[in-house]
Amino acid sequence: MAYVRNAWYVASWVQDVSSDKPYALSILDEPLVLWRAEDRWIALEDRCSHRLAPLSLGRVEGDSLRCMYHGLRFSTEGKCVEIPGQETIPAQARVKTYPIVEKHSWLWVWMGDPALADVSLVPPAVGFDDPDWILGRGFLDYQAEARLINDNLLDLSHASYVHANSFQGGDVYALERPQLETLSRGVRFSRWTTDVPGSIIRQSDEKVDAYMRYDFLIPGVLLMWTGQFPAGTAAACNFEKPDYSMAIGGVTFTSQAVTPTGDKTSRYFFSWGPHRNHGDEALRDFLLGVAQQAFAEDKVMIEAQQQVIDRTASPSIVAIAHDRGPILFNRLVEQLAQDESSRPIA
Amino acid sequence: MAYVRNAWYVASWVQDVSSDKPYALSILDEPLVLWRAEDRWIALEDRCSHRLAPLSLGRVEGDSLRCMYHGLRFSTEGKCVEIPGQETIPAQARVKTYPIVEKHSWLWVWMGDPALADVSLVPPAVGFDDPDWILGRGFLDYQAEARLINDNLLDLSHASYVHANSFQGGDVYALERPQLETLSRGVRFSRWTTDVPGSIIRQSDEKVDAYMRYDFLIPGVLLMWTGQFPAGTAAACNFEKPDYSMAIGGVTFTSQAVTPTGDKTSRYFFSWGPHRNHGDEALRDFLLGVAQQAFAEDKVMIEAQQQVIDRTASPSIVAIAHDRGPILFNRLVEQLAQDESSRPIA
Amino acid sequence: MAYVRNAWYVASWVQDVSSDKPYALSILDEPLVLWRAEDRWIALEDRCSHRLAPLSLGRVEGDSLRCMYHGLRFSTEGKCVEIPGQETIPAQARVKTYPIVEKHSWLWVWMGDPALADVSLVPPAVGFDDPDWILGRGFLDYQAEARLINDNLLDLSHASYVHANSFQGGDVYALERPQLETLSRGVRFSRWTTDVPGSIIRQSDEKVDAYMRYDFLIPGVLLMWTGQFPAGTAAACNFEKPDYSMAIGGVTFTSQAVTPTGDKTSRYFFSWGPHRNHGDEALRDFLLGVAQQAFAEDKVMIEAQQQVIDRTASPSIVAIAHDRGPILFNRLVEQLAQDESSRPIA
Repeated sequence: MAYVRNAWYVASWVQDVSSDKPYALSILDEPLVLWRAEDRWIALEDRCSHRLAPLSLGRVEGDSLRCMYHGLRFSTEGKCVEIPGQETIPAQARVKTYPIVEKHSWLWVWMGDPALADVSLVPPAVGFDDPDWILGRGFLDYQAEARLINDNLLDLSHASYVHANSFQGGDVYALERPQLETLSRGVRFSRWTTDVPGSIIRQSDEKVDAYMRYDFLIPGVLLMWTGQFPAGTAAACNFEKPDYSMAIGGVTFTSQAVTPTGDKTSRYFFSWGPHRNHGDEALRDFLLGVAQQAFAEDKVMIEAQQQVIDRTASPSIVAIAHDRGPILFNRLVEQLAQDESSRPIA
Repeated sequence: MAYVRNAWYVASWVQDVSSDKPYALSILDEPLVLWRAEDRWIALEDRCSHRLAPLSLGRVEGDSLRCMYHGLRFSTEGKCVEIPGQETIPAQARVKTYPIVEKHSWLWVWMGDPALADVSLVPPAVGFDDPDWILGRGFLDYQAEARLINDNLLDLSHASYVHANSFQGGDVYALERPQLETLSRGVRFSRWTTDVPGSIIRQSDEKVDAYMRYDFLIPGVLLMWTGQFPAGTAAACNFEKPDYSMAIGGVTFTSQAVTPTGDKTSRYFFSWGPHRNHGDEALRDFLLGVAQQAFAEDKVMIEAQQQVIDRTASPSIVAIAHDRGPILFNRLVEQLAQDESSRPIA
Repeated sequence: MAYVRNAWYVASWVQDVSSDKPYALSILDEPLVLWRAEDRWIALEDRCSHRLAPLSLGRVEGDSLRCMYHGLRFSTEGKCVEIPGQETIPAQARVKTYPIVEKHSWLWVWMGDPALADVSLVPPAVGFDDPDWILGRGFLDYQAEARLINDNLLDLSHASYVHANSFQGGDVYALERPQLETLSRGVRFSRWTTDVPGSIIRQSDEKVDAYMRYDFLIPGVLLMWTGQFPAGTAAACNFEKPDYSMAIGGVTFTSQAVTPTGDKTSRYFFSWGPHRNHGDEALRDFLLGVAQQAFAEDKVMIEAQQQVIDRTASPSIVAIAHDRGPILFNRLVEQLAQDESSRPIA
């Protein structure tokens, strides 16, 4: 299956990249080096044009990056600007650059046509600079293709089985299908669970109506909000989106981003935490613990699934009703990827 | 080289499979899940028809097995009988079943045409339920194709070299060839060693005549009996099979089964121990220690041999006289495999 | 890129091979077994002609080597001279032999036409038997093709970057190019560094002129001499080779040999130490520590370079002025390899 190239891929939590050392990461199997020039982030091909040593073993020198094999120095535009021991610099001594932007505490890299890189297409996540939310974060490396993780996140019915221990959501995720809506670059899911004693996020003595909504956006970014409301709220707002100022607790936000690093490898970034009015650092730490348990459960299942797929001659799936989310999203991916390949690169 | 599919392959010692958790194993590179239904063992393709997650990560529920990714539930016939959240079940939601039988403490799986699965073809091993024998058991995983282990067991002349330390059998295995007889589904080896002071199994003050006989049967099962007799017995019975009631000691039984798990991987199952009239648990433990040393010696040699083969452009062997056993058995395998491929699957 | 076959490849430091046990090593991806017959070293194909077990798991028996799988015994000429349990020995029961010679404490194996094996082509290294030098030694295994290590040694400009910490040579290696001269089977580099306070080999209170010269010879052997001289010596001898009897210190010798073991693996052998008049065991140990740090720096860079190359569709380099050494040497390799392939093997 194709991936969309004209999209912003999460390369890293910005907190995980030092401002004075280059950082290596592959996206769509292309080796990249990220580094901090004097006033901005730079993403270059991680391959010196001289002898193909990785620039990520190099040294940041102000607005340039020096290869530490034979000393070639590259500008923020990927142009070689110094070759020690010689005067002239051949024109081919340059490396590819990638648009990169820091937003919502993530570094995003545009893998397609640079002329089309549009910052407004960065998914509207919530960063650590947002005073309303108390977030924790992490990432996991998968030995599995990103598409399998996307499919997992596009159908939460698996929560009833894979996450029976961690999220303790019971049968409801498997038995009832969420509301589903297509977006221009993704799919939106929402679900009311009515008259329940809260959830793992917040146990409640009185019964509540719990709401959750998430967008899953190109190339593979999940943004989810949850909240608990007085019993009856779901019906009162006609099972549509509630007014969050009416929430009595359990208001949290999580963002999750799936980045295909190689053909069969991925990095899975995540944050989670409560709204400042509905929790504190202790709740954040508890939620992060639950998330780490749950994401480990997914990893076991998805990596095992990948191994079975790899051993299957002509792998094909038998779709079920819960696959409507994955089907809609993957159709969108196919459409965008096809549009790209038929459009000449500027 | 081909393998015979219409044959019972050892999948496990029955003691190693829990009756309430599914068990994963590959045979002939096909992923299988074994599980205990209410009154019998079941072997299914280890691949959910929905999204190819392994059913071996699933949950046994009475006479059915539930995939723990999205909850599909399969019957003992491999038919999906429940898809959470939907009413109808597509006909393609089914997985392949394999005939399986428990016998002689082994679980045997038939890898060929189910219509031809014939329990009478299970090799006549000795199980732990047989009160006459005091057995120990184990298994080893090999990074080598099963054929190489079969070849090893089909020519015990290697004992003089590979097992000089463990079995201490001296030169006789290399210098004298065993009697050899073809069976309908295997080869039978027998050997008298006369006038010797016993063997590693039982050292003897007076000289004895030692007898051993083993059948090596399709697909790769060795069944061996040994015994020590008064000197002169070999000649007295014309170097044929003796009457075991005349044995003065050293009566043991070992079964060894070689299962090709993948293209270049195998699992090697074994048991060994004395007849109750000729030994006890202490002798069994001693023999098992000797076996474990010896099988480790084989493993070093065979895995190294596999590596050399893998690095050889057109690997071919120069047969010697001792190869008569491997040649006869492999000819039988080729013949049976060829018969299978020319016969339409029912 | 091709390798020259008609050349002596270093197989081992002779000290690392026991005289009573066979030793396994691959050169040019061919598995070899080295062993000590009664009065000389033998190199055979490491693959028994019977069933392809490695002879390196065998046993040295005087002037023969016994395979310890089924006991075949091979002569120093690679001919099978015994098959246990049978009288006649088929003519195909023989393994390939390779010319091998011990010289300068190294075992050298000729990988080409045995008829052309010429001991005078062994590079004139310095062995541990030479009383003039106090040497230490070692080797490193690389996950990289030998050519990349050769290229590294053929352009020491990398010392200014890769070895900034270990050798502390400063910018001079990158900024000034060495003198360069072609040899019939290699390239010679020399360099005067004038008016400097010594080097890592020997810090000096008064300023000195430092000289170094190395030959890099087919198939991949570096022989280097260094020395420090009174300031002014370089100019006095017209920047040619000095008279070493005038040296005031820092006289050392190092040999380094790069052996391609597999397609993408290599073994890198090295020695280093002072001349007896200019140092002692303590200096040797210090130098060896510096070398081990430096060679680890190279290994990190070169293995990373190999990984980038492996991920690059059509890897090509952009040559710089410092590449003159690698270009000359690789051109020689190509020429010799081409000569070989057009010449019929005797």
